[in-house]
Amino acid sequence: MSGLSGADRAPGRLIALDWGTSSLRAWLLDGEGRPLDKRQSPMGILEVPAGDFRTAFETICRDWLAQQPSLPVIASGMIGSRQGWREAPYLRTPANPADLARDLLVMDDVAGRVFRIVPGLTTGGDGMPDVMRGEETQILGTLASGLGSVQGQVIVLPGTHSKWVQIGNGAIVTFRTWMTGELYAVLRQHSILGKLAVPAQAWSADLQSAFEDGVARAVDAAGAFGRLLFSARSRVLVGDLAAEQVSAYLSGLLIGSEIHDAMRLFDAGGAPPLIIAEPELAARYESAFRILGHATRTAPPDAAVRGLFAIARSAALLDAA
Amino acid sequence: MSGLSGADRAPGRLIALDWGTSSLRAWLLDGEGRPLDKRQSPMGILEVPAGDFRTAFETICRDWLAQQPSLPVIASGMIGSRQGWREAPYLRTPANPADLARDLLVMDDVAGRVFRIVPGLTTGGDGMPDVMRGEETQILGTLASGLGSVQGQVIVLPGTHSKWVQIGNGAIVTFRTWMTGELYAVLRQHSILGKLAVPAQAWSADLQSAFEDGVARAVDAAGAFGRLLFSARSRVLVGDLAAEQVSAYLSGLLIGSEIHDAMRLFDAGGAPPLIIAEPELAARYESAFRILGHATRTAPPDAAVRGLFAIARSAALLDAA
Repeated sequence: MSGLSGADRAPGRLIALDWGTSSLRAWLLDGEGRPLDKRQSPMGILEVPAGDFRTAFETICRDWLAQQPSLPVIASGMIGSRQGWREAPYLRTPANPADLARDLLVMDDVAGRVFRIVPGLTTGGDGMPDVMRGEETQILGTLASGLGSVQGQVIVLPGTHSKWVQIGNGAIVTFRTWMTGELYAVLRQHSILGKLAVPAQAWSADLQSAFEDGVARAVDAAGAFGRLLFSARSRVLVGDLAAEQVSAYLSGLLIGSEIHDAMRLFDAGGAPPLIIAEPELAARYESAFRILGHATRTAPPDAAVRGLFAIARSAALLDAA
Repeated sequence: MSGLSGADRAPGRLIALDWGTSSLRAWLLDGEGRPLDKRQSPMGILEVPAGDFRTAFETICRDWLAQQPSLPVIASGMIGSRQGWREAPYLRTPANPADLARDLLVMDDVAGRVFRIVPGLTTGGDGMPDVMRGEETQILGTLASGLGSVQGQVIVLPGTHSKWVQIGNGAIVTFRTWMTGELYAVLRQHSILGKLAVPAQAWSADLQSAFEDGVARAVDAAGAFGRLLFSARSRVLVGDLAAEQVSAYLSGLLIGSEIHDAMRLFDAGGAPPLIIAEPELAARYESAFRILGHATRTAPPDAAVRGLFAIARSAALLDAA
């Protein structure tokens, strides 16, 4: 718990929730979208006891609701998935903030107050459908801050399921998912590649070198990392890679493959790709992009809360209470 | 336990062991390499209690040794790995049966009898080392049966770690590993792709169709399966793939990617690739090759025992006892 005590602060106009699989973040916002207060909890949708989302929500926002019981609420992320509070059907691309605002899932009945969930997006009429849920809000929050609105802008959201997104006319036009972070995790934890790996204490020049080597090899192999993966074992067996470097090398192979493949699909030679990520992961991707000869930009933090506010304003939600 | 009782059969000349991670197969062979008797056990190297390999060996071969205590023994597979009985250092490619025979690891001291282990192979002077252990014996066993000796012949051994091998002058010239089977297993068991998958009872037309679809998409995407993997989830979410088809589709994506990538490296337009695998897996690969427009041949079974015999004869091991 942090922030000003209730007595000292201006009145709030909106509660914004970024409610994912493994965490819940809540902001109390004023009429301009400025955070008045903030809460964070590990109560992701899979951690909510007995699926009692209402109690989880009322607990994290208790102070705010005690002062202003009729604050409207907007939420995005996996809370709107099949495993969440209630499923918010996917909206088809292209989608801009007004489209999302028009299709908010109304949860007022079950939440006992004005409570809306941002729908996820689906794309791909080419027989290769893709989905996102939560990232659409971060992307629109970044656009709302004046970044990335260039026609054809490529936005990259690295992570468990990395999303590559193309922007046009202020809307999300299309996107595609790479399971990079999850592949890394399952290979490290459950495959033979993890058997020889020794955890490193902190990022170092040796690890950066192994990472960059992985990226470069992935590019040389034209992204075909299926045939490179085993080298994270064989190079250790023949004494060509230290056990402490295995994870960084594997990370380089996976991220290098992702960027190589994705740039073939998404790069239209326009503005540098814009990265939305926590600083450490963003730095890893920037470094991989550099090896591939691509400049990048990194979005300012808190894209989610700015997206939630932009959509809520577009839906006239601030006046709804 | 199976086979003729000791009293009824001709005397043996060699015990051959195919001793892998998860199973142990043993044959009693006559002077022409014909099996006189056979044993099979789940006592793979990771299952041997307290690493007492000698007892595990003497148990499975008890009858044979009781009759002929001085039978020579040859073994191949993970028994010669760092986690096995003793490490048999990797031999560099190119390697033919005579090369392997010359470099057998002598285990006579610890085994209390003539006992040799076939070394694994390492390849790749191009900074991308690769290793195999056990497959070299199957390959040479197949060559010994008169198949695959064409110059430039490509041999494929699908599995947990699929091996693609090029043959020249009767030797293994080079090879490369794809972690296809292991990727399939960890993604099915530990990733989000497994969450929506429902096990199917038996292979069916619906599964074959999902498998072929996966192969075709992998080829269309030029093998870049990193960007296709998530479709094994998104297609279910949008109602485009049945939960029972997820595993077959994923299998198609992975095998299709492997074959696409590997044929770019290995196909020299020569003889059809030769597959060494159990019948069910061989059929799956044949079907994927067909979709890609490639004919294949499938090697006869028991390549391992034929390889063990060929190497033992080349090492004059039958006369060693």
